Amino acid sequence: MREEIIKNSVKLFERKGFSETSIQDIVDSIGVTKGTFYYYYASKENLLMEIHLRYIDNLLKNQRLILQTIHSFREQLAETVKLIIHDMKYRVSHGRVHFREINNLTAEHAKKIKEKREEFRLNVIQIISNGIQSGEFRKSLHPQMISLAVLGVTNWSYHWFNPDGDISVEELANRYVDFILNGMIASRDCEDVG
Amino acid sequence: MREEIIKNSVKLFERKGFSETSIQDIVDSIGVTKGTFYYYYASKENLLMEIHLRYIDNLLKNQRLILQTIHSFREQLAETVKLIIHDMKYRVSHGRVHFREINNLTAEHAKKIKEKREEFRLNVIQIISNGIQSGEFRKSLHPQMISLAVLGVTNWSYHWFNPDGDISVEELANRYVDFILNGMIASRDCEDVG
Repeated sequence: MREEIIKNSVKLFERKGFSETSIQDIVDSIGVTKGTFYYYYASKENLLMEIHLRYIDNLLKNQRLILQTIHSFREQLAETVKLIIHDMKYRVSHGRVHFREINNLTAEHAKKIKEKREEFRLNVIQIISNGIQSGEFRKSLHPQMISLAVLGVTNWSYHWFNPDGDISVEELANRYVDFILNGMIASRDCEDVG
Repeated sequence: MREEIIKNSVKLFERKGFSETSIQDIVDSIGVTKGTFYYYYASKENLLMEIHLRYIDNLLKNQRLILQTIHSFREQLAETVKLIIHDMKYRVSHGRVHFREINNLTAEHAKKIKEKREEFRLNVIQIISNGIQSGEFRKSLHPQMISLAVLGVTNWSYHWFNPDGDISVEELANRYVDFILNGMIASRDCEDVG
């Protein structure tokens, strides 16, 4: 039942927004009573927090695995990009709720989720810094700003990607890894910036 | 007064959200009565539509200028990126409201705004296609998917950029143009994808 509640509420939150979805809407969509809902969650906000936690904890767990098992920093970055994009195959609605609904958490809960997001991003910064030191990445890159550019590419996908469309997550991930690593221009001039 | 209403409501919509901001909140922030508001706008949604239109029409106007005056497709792309990033100097709140509040427009208004956004993106796709044909960009790029990656980098900035922070929009734009054109890796292997 817990899984049922999460699955249905994610769909409702994605379509109508958290504020516009009532507990009644959620239990109606499953065909149970409010009593069942309150058996599992003290409030709608508690449910939202569990949705956030599941989403970000899963990403962090898989990111840790990447960091522990892969030695090349370039591959670590590629696998991180693939992790976020491949996740859209089954969890695109989940991710959209995660990106949009942080302001509907209590201050304490929002802080906890933001810290976990920050942990994920700090790991990306670390991969970039390590890759610059090892000579895999260009020296002129600014790890903080580039981490946000990489996450811009991946996270913006949640905004437009259609899981039922023509593009597979695998193709999209491969193309975005290539774009991030190799850029767009045909013959590269390494210009210094900053 | 019209400018005053727009300026103050953009700040309120950014901080509290469109739904949570009342017309009373807006007129209170300026120190006028509701009568003044209704002299300029028939409804709060009408005001939101004007905010959207001003934002996207300004971008489209400047994009047209880029397409008409610059011949290199690489430079057209660079200037498009700079256009969106530089815009955060004075219009970051405006842009945030534009990205977040499309669902609070009437269906007809939302359609119009989405068509304008699509026009902007189709121009980016065209730049990429032209640049591939001219040999400025790599042949293996997928113009549609790459247009969304480029816009992911630029639009995600509105999510995190702090106009009062240490990073200037000029530095950020230069670094992102470099990232988009040249990618991250130190010695490039052009891998085929797809």
